[in-house]
Amino acid sequence: MIRFDHQREERIRLPESVFCKDKSVEMLNETIAELVEGAATGVLFTRLDREKFVSLESELAAHLDYHELSGTAILGGARGKRVPGKVAVITAGTADLPVAWEAQRTLQYLGVTSTLVADVGVAGLWRIQERLAEINEHDVLIVVAGMDAALASVVGGLTSRPLIGVPTSTGYGVSTGGRTALESMLASCSPGVVVVNIDNGYGAACAAARILQGIQSE
Amino acid sequence: MIRFDHQREERIRLPESVFCKDKSVEMLNETIAELVEGAATGVLFTRLDREKFVSLESELAAHLDYHELSGTAILGGARGKRVPGKVAVITAGTADLPVAWEAQRTLQYLGVTSTLVADVGVAGLWRIQERLAEINEHDVLIVVAGMDAALASVVGGLTSRPLIGVPTSTGYGVSTGGRTALESMLASCSPGVVVVNIDNGYGAACAAARILQGIQSE
Amino acid sequence: MIRFDHQREERIRLPESVFCKDKSVEMLNETIAELVEGAATGVLFTRLDREKFVSLESELAAHLDYHELSGTAILGGARGKRVPGKVAVITAGTADLPVAWEAQRTLQYLGVTSTLVADVGVAGLWRIQERLAEINEHDVLIVVAGMDAALASVVGGLTSRPLIGVPTSTGYGVSTGGRTALESMLASCSPGVVVVNIDNGYGAACAAARILQGIQSE
Amino acid sequence: MIRFDHQREERIRLPESVFCKDKSVEMLNETIAELVEGAATGVLFTRLDREKFVSLESELAAHLDYHELSGTAILGGARGKRVPGKVAVITAGTADLPVAWEAQRTLQYLGVTSTLVADVGVAGLWRIQERLAEINEHDVLIVVAGMDAALASVVGGLTSRPLIGVPTSTGYGVSTGGRTALESMLASCSPGVVVVNIDNGYGAACAAARILQGIQSE
Amino acid sequence: MIRFDHQREERIRLPESVFCKDKSVEMLNETIAELVEGAATGVLFTRLDREKFVSLESELAAHLDYHELSGTAILGGARGKRVPGKVAVITAGTADLPVAWEAQRTLQYLGVTSTLVADVGVAGLWRIQERLAEINEHDVLIVVAGMDAALASVVGGLTSRPLIGVPTSTGYGVSTGGRTALESMLASCSPGVVVVNIDNGYGAACAAARILQGIQSE
Amino acid sequence: MIRFDHQREERIRLPESVFCKDKSVEMLNETIAELVEGAATGVLFTRLDREKFVSLESELAAHLDYHELSGTAILGGARGKRVPGKVAVITAGTADLPVAWEAQRTLQYLGVTSTLVADVGVAGLWRIQERLAEINEHDVLIVVAGMDAALASVVGGLTSRPLIGVPTSTGYGVSTGGRTALESMLASCSPGVVVVNIDNGYGAACAAARILQGIQSE
Amino acid sequence: MIRFDHQREERIRLPESVFCKDKSVEMLNETIAELVEGAATGVLFTRLDREKFVSLESELAAHLDYHELSGTAILGGARGKRVPGKVAVITAGTADLPVAWEAQRTLQYLGVTSTLVADVGVAGLWRIQERLAEINEHDVLIVVAGMDAALASVVGGLTSRPLIGVPTSTGYGVSTGGRTALESMLASCSPGVVVVNIDNGYGAACAAARILQGIQSE
Amino acid sequence: MIRFDHQREERIRLPESVFCKDKSVEMLNETIAELVEGAATGVLFTRLDREKFVSLESELAAHLDYHELSGTAILGGARGKRVPGKVAVITAGTADLPVAWEAQRTLQYLGVTSTLVADVGVAGLWRIQERLAEINEHDVLIVVAGMDAALASVVGGLTSRPLIGVPTSTGYGVSTGGRTALESMLASCSPGVVVVNIDNGYGAACAAARILQGIQSE
Repeated sequence: MIRFDHQREERIRLPESVFCKDKSVEMLNETIAELVEGAATGVLFTRLDREKFVSLESELAAHLDYHELSGTAILGGARGKRVPGKVAVITAGTADLPVAWEAQRTLQYLGVTSTLVADVGVAGLWRIQERLAEINEHDVLIVVAGMDAALASVVGGLTSRPLIGVPTSTGYGVSTGGRTALESMLASCSPGVVVVNIDNGYGAACAAARILQGIQSE
Repeated sequence: MIRFDHQREERIRLPESVFCKDKSVEMLNETIAELVEGAATGVLFTRLDREKFVSLESELAAHLDYHELSGTAILGGARGKRVPGKVAVITAGTADLPVAWEAQRTLQYLGVTSTLVADVGVAGLWRIQERLAEINEHDVLIVVAGMDAALASVVGGLTSRPLIGVPTSTGYGVSTGGRTALESMLASCSPGVVVVNIDNGYGAACAAARILQGIQSE
Repeated sequence: MIRFDHQREERIRLPESVFCKDKSVEMLNETIAELVEGAATGVLFTRLDREKFVSLESELAAHLDYHELSGTAILGGARGKRVPGKVAVITAGTADLPVAWEAQRTLQYLGVTSTLVADVGVAGLWRIQERLAEINEHDVLIVVAGMDAALASVVGGLTSRPLIGVPTSTGYGVSTGGRTALESMLASCSPGVVVVNIDNGYGAACAAARILQGIQSE
Repeated sequence: MIRFDHQREERIRLPESVFCKDKSVEMLNETIAELVEGAATGVLFTRLDREKFVSLESELAAHLDYHELSGTAILGGARGKRVPGKVAVITAGTADLPVAWEAQRTLQYLGVTSTLVADVGVAGLWRIQERLAEINEHDVLIVVAGMDAALASVVGGLTSRPLIGVPTSTGYGVSTGGRTALESMLASCSPGVVVVNIDNGYGAACAAARILQGIQSE
Repeated sequence: MIRFDHQREERIRLPESVFCKDKSVEMLNETIAELVEGAATGVLFTRLDREKFVSLESELAAHLDYHELSGTAILGGARGKRVPGKVAVITAGTADLPVAWEAQRTLQYLGVTSTLVADVGVAGLWRIQERLAEINEHDVLIVVAGMDAALASVVGGLTSRPLIGVPTSTGYGVSTGGRTALESMLASCSPGVVVVNIDNGYGAACAAARILQGIQSE
Repeated sequence: MIRFDHQREERIRLPESVFCKDKSVEMLNETIAELVEGAATGVLFTRLDREKFVSLESELAAHLDYHELSGTAILGGARGKRVPGKVAVITAGTADLPVAWEAQRTLQYLGVTSTLVADVGVAGLWRIQERLAEINEHDVLIVVAGMDAALASVVGGLTSRPLIGVPTSTGYGVSTGGRTALESMLASCSPGVVVVNIDNGYGAACAAARILQGIQSE
Repeated sequence: MIRFDHQREERIRLPESVFCKDKSVEMLNETIAELVEGAATGVLFTRLDREKFVSLESELAAHLDYHELSGTAILGGARGKRVPGKVAVITAGTADLPVAWEAQRTLQYLGVTSTLVADVGVAGLWRIQERLAEINEHDVLIVVAGMDAALASVVGGLTSRPLIGVPTSTGYGVSTGGRTALESMLASCSPGVVVVNIDNGYGAACAAARILQGIQSE
Repeated sequence: MIRFDHQREERIRLPESVFCKDKSVEMLNETIAELVEGAATGVLFTRLDREKFVSLESELAAHLDYHELSGTAILGGARGKRVPGKVAVITAGTADLPVAWEAQRTLQYLGVTSTLVADVGVAGLWRIQERLAEINEHDVLIVVAGMDAALASVVGGLTSRPLIGVPTSTGYGVSTGGRTALESMLASCSPGVVVVNIDNGYGAACAAARILQGIQSE
């Protein structure tokens, strides 16, 4: 029997979620069964790739609202309440999209509106500058970038908005695994850029919700 | 002649600052002279240790409001405007204080009110739990911790507030330089914890200001 | 012909075991055949995944008491003697269970009683606090945790029992491979926490046996 | 004002201690003054080198029982109670002695008897074998070794006692900082060896006390 | 067309060899075809796993004397000449055998006699001590060990023979990939131990040949 | 007696130079004496800090044209010939200047004209954009930047000129030693950016000379 | 819809390219479809392995000029214009060829002539010396080497040409992933060697084009 | 009282030595006093820098034959016996000399004849080729090199002699501490190159003695 942190929503205003990557299909089947039995609502599953999803017991899988591109699933529907404010999810390149989608899907589940601003890497600087006014209409920015992750520094120097960097594990050689992108964002020359773990679109979305829910509660 | 980013305040609502660690006394003297000549207001100097400060030309040093414990100095006075909201700066141990003070001093300079919640490391869990209500009265939390940095995860699981982790370079052996604390915070099991560079109290304060200034502008 | 350390039990009171991960199916077949021929008793096989187990010669595999979840097998039955005292195996999350099961299965084989205290990660602190009294009824604690591994520090600060930390290779990004969890445990702010290699449930169980067998021999 | 964890002794049976390396002389003066004022008893100071010790206010320093070789000081006397059992502190080479002394001094302060078995590195294997019987008369072994740290594996294969490895930062090249010794101990081919942070004689002593105090309470 | 270093034998008294791991089946087919066409004699292929070997064009593969356990193949027969002296190849555990076999097979191809001394890891010290006299009858020692690689230090402290350490990539956690074994051997407390790359049985054999051929030429 | 590579100029069109950091004052005195005796012309000394320079035998030091800011000295005058083309040395921040000066001083010594474009870091993007036309009038660009080194990517995306990145060891935390800047440049999202070792202004200048001398020789 | 940087050619004289490794087949299909629809000319695809290529929609794949050995494809034909000058692509061993071919294929697409000088690793020094005159007839040199990457230093000391090093991820043990080759090239004792990311044949070719196009524009 | 391994000479034919870097002046005084009292002969002290040497009690220091350039001292005279054969100690650059001298001084103390072949780095390849015949007159080669350490590979490809590589910690940036040189030597493309720890001239000399003493005993 799995011990869920059912009080989490009440305590930190973020519901329980299930990270699927390190869990076997058996563990996931058991988890879903318990949740369904307990009539749980609003549980987010992340890093659930297609191969694993199709291996689930079909009866249990039927309870999941699955979204393949982001590797996420929702059991029991999203939260009813809406969080005020808007988030822009900004990506450097096409390969960063799955992480961006994980962030957007998490935001949607948390009741937060978001916009995708894709393919605005700094190798073609005009792309980000062209959309700066649009970006500034959002309350929180999530910048998703791999390799040199220079986009976080450039955006951080162009806007006053809270900016959460998500380094991605794209690339090869020194980029492998996302270490360079992570450290580049942490060493950003633009002040006040904050960072989450590599490929952690989910965490960035939760951080954005913490910020926006704080505004709400004033 | 140094090229300052004088438009920074207007563009990103954070004024220009000077990181002193990698600059020679000669460079700093030149910088201060140019700023004084240009009648600059509100420039923050960080990582200015006593040894370097007392080596400055005394005439120039006289323009600085120096604070030794945090290694910061302000030239031309703090910003006039006040930013709404309050920040709690929470530390695990005594050795984390200089970084916490850098954060507090930066906040003060940015017009943000802050409270220090010191010595609440998780080895004695009652200390953080005892002060939880007080902590929750703040809008943004900055958690400063070295070694295992477990405090960030524990606080992140107890409150819904935006939480910025600052790993510190305290400790020895595997703790040396703060890598373990940094990675522990990035890998935090509490959702929505964001992180800045090791010992970067300044950056955490700027991130808090980005959040609070966003609230203000709603 | 393999040279077993048959005197090990006598010398260090821990029987010989076979680590299967780096051994080919051919090597394992040969090992089992020799052990069976020598009428060996009480040999533990670890890291024996299902794929490898089913590839063994079925005649030889029939001599193994296989346990898939923990990847362990016992040849020739467990030790007859019972070791006094009890061990609590405490896990942060569901993904840490295979390592916890390896520890429990090794303890069982060594004649040591153990209890599993699962899913008590610090993101929901009430879970570990709720079970503290139960935990304190055990003589040795094994804490299995990945990512930030903050659970080791928190438990270490709540109890006086010997505490052996087992970092796990769960997670992604900076958590990959378990380095962060390992170093976080080594840098624990709670005094007297000791650590074994990443995912080494077997080693933690042996260490617990060393402690409990010492008590026995007083 | 520093917030001590005064309940620590009661909670985990290990008294509060002060790690001095990352604290300024000013911080230490303030700490000692508060402890003296509060009539604290039995506080251990570690990593207090001579240079720092002689810089303390002499009035405050007079309250410390200082031991230069181990870099430790005790304020308010050691604990009255005696812990049953004996610990052997075993070192590979002369350069490991300061860490061994930190362990011994911490044990003494905790009320635990210890013996030093020095200079028994495996390059001259007869040295450790010659003293094996003597070593086996102890209840817990602390093995202090740098460079290849092979001593931990060799001792672990010769005795059934609980064995705590302390890697040291001696050596040069790949040994620099103690990483190789740490990882060599964690990867030990002898089962049940547990490890603490590099140079952490204090932590090893606390772990030994956790074990011996557990025996006592049976 | 591949450019072989046909003068190598003449220049450094070690014949050309082909490392197969990073080469595609197409590249290998082309290489063998050219060698066969040129009537090459005595070319050693290393890291040629079964999967790759069976994918070769069968006509070409027929020219190879393949040895699966060591992943080696010889084209055109071994060298005719015999090198005086004997090498002992000593292994810590069963998982080290493939690397030991690569060393033995390379020695055989170079005309050097060798003996395998297997399963003498230091966790059971009697095993290596029991065979010390036999080992000392050899002119050069190759010690193959993974994990903590303590065997190299122990053997180095027991004998005066030239000792070449080969760290292996066995194990898990901190042992992964063989870094710990490599650095432990480089940091060996026994004087005059030399080391080759991880898993490089071939290189150790070549080094032994350099030594023995030097003796020959006196 | 030191063996200079006097044919270097003829062979690779770059004269011999002396890297002073790892050489003792005694070694440098001996080197200069031999050069003076041999009537050497055009030898560049790099990484010669003031402390070392003033420790040289004054008679020998008198032969050096010393430049403190760049830590360089020239013995026997610069090369007579001029290399066609111009190099722009572009820096992100003030702390990058010593490395930029090393590059400029090496270029001057090699007969190459250069311009310094300082303080154009991407946190204030307008600074680099404002000077783009001026930069494009140069034949080769050297971009000197530490921390996130995002400047290399941004410049690489704005111009078609050959671009040599020099990462610097400025900053703290993850920036320490310049690894992050190095890897960020290597992972640059702008195509065709090449990189030299951390702080290697000298190497970047030599690379620029290789390019410009190639043009000359067409 | 993907946002291409169509102005890239005009701005930096290098056309847009598509790095395929981190992109799913779905993403690639969408990319090609958009390019075909937009009648794009001259788009280079890199790291497109056979498995991925054959998974593309055959209608879309038909628009690609695919080259398996280098993993590259060109859509819409190469650039019409020719760049003056010649590049020599020099490899140490057979395993470096795929990276060399990526460089050559990129050069071809950019309109640059290149020559392959293969299998001239320094273990047989005569091979590179034999071809030195031929190499010197080229304007830019690209040296592709893994393992110790000593070839870059040796070539750098023999010629005055601009030299771009491409470290490769060949080898095993410490060579794994190409870090050693990368750092060896960055630390080259030959002055003016510049380096690109591991296995980045594409980047080296772009850098060569930057150099040669600069010559053209004089 | 220090426990010397007095049987070492008899057992492994290498006398006891004292590594001074990690030992305090007090420890060294005590060591020398005990050795003098025990009338020890032939003890080598390594890494004894001038500052430490002059801090020794002068009465004790008088027993040492000190050699500053190599940081070595001999107490009680060198070994009487001579070992047959000759060693060439080959260095890439001037900064490698202290390590080369440590090797030579150790060889002298062990009774082995050696020749220094200095300043033959591969940037000027003619230097090593010019002295190849001379080098080949030696029985064992020690190659001392930092940075890219390409010299080991080049020499390894030119001669059949046993070759021991000693990486040095010279250089800066990626060379810092000697890791790159170490890994470059381990990954050498020349077969049969063996390696010792960074800056370990002493170990290389001991390895050479193991080889030459083996020849002697045939």
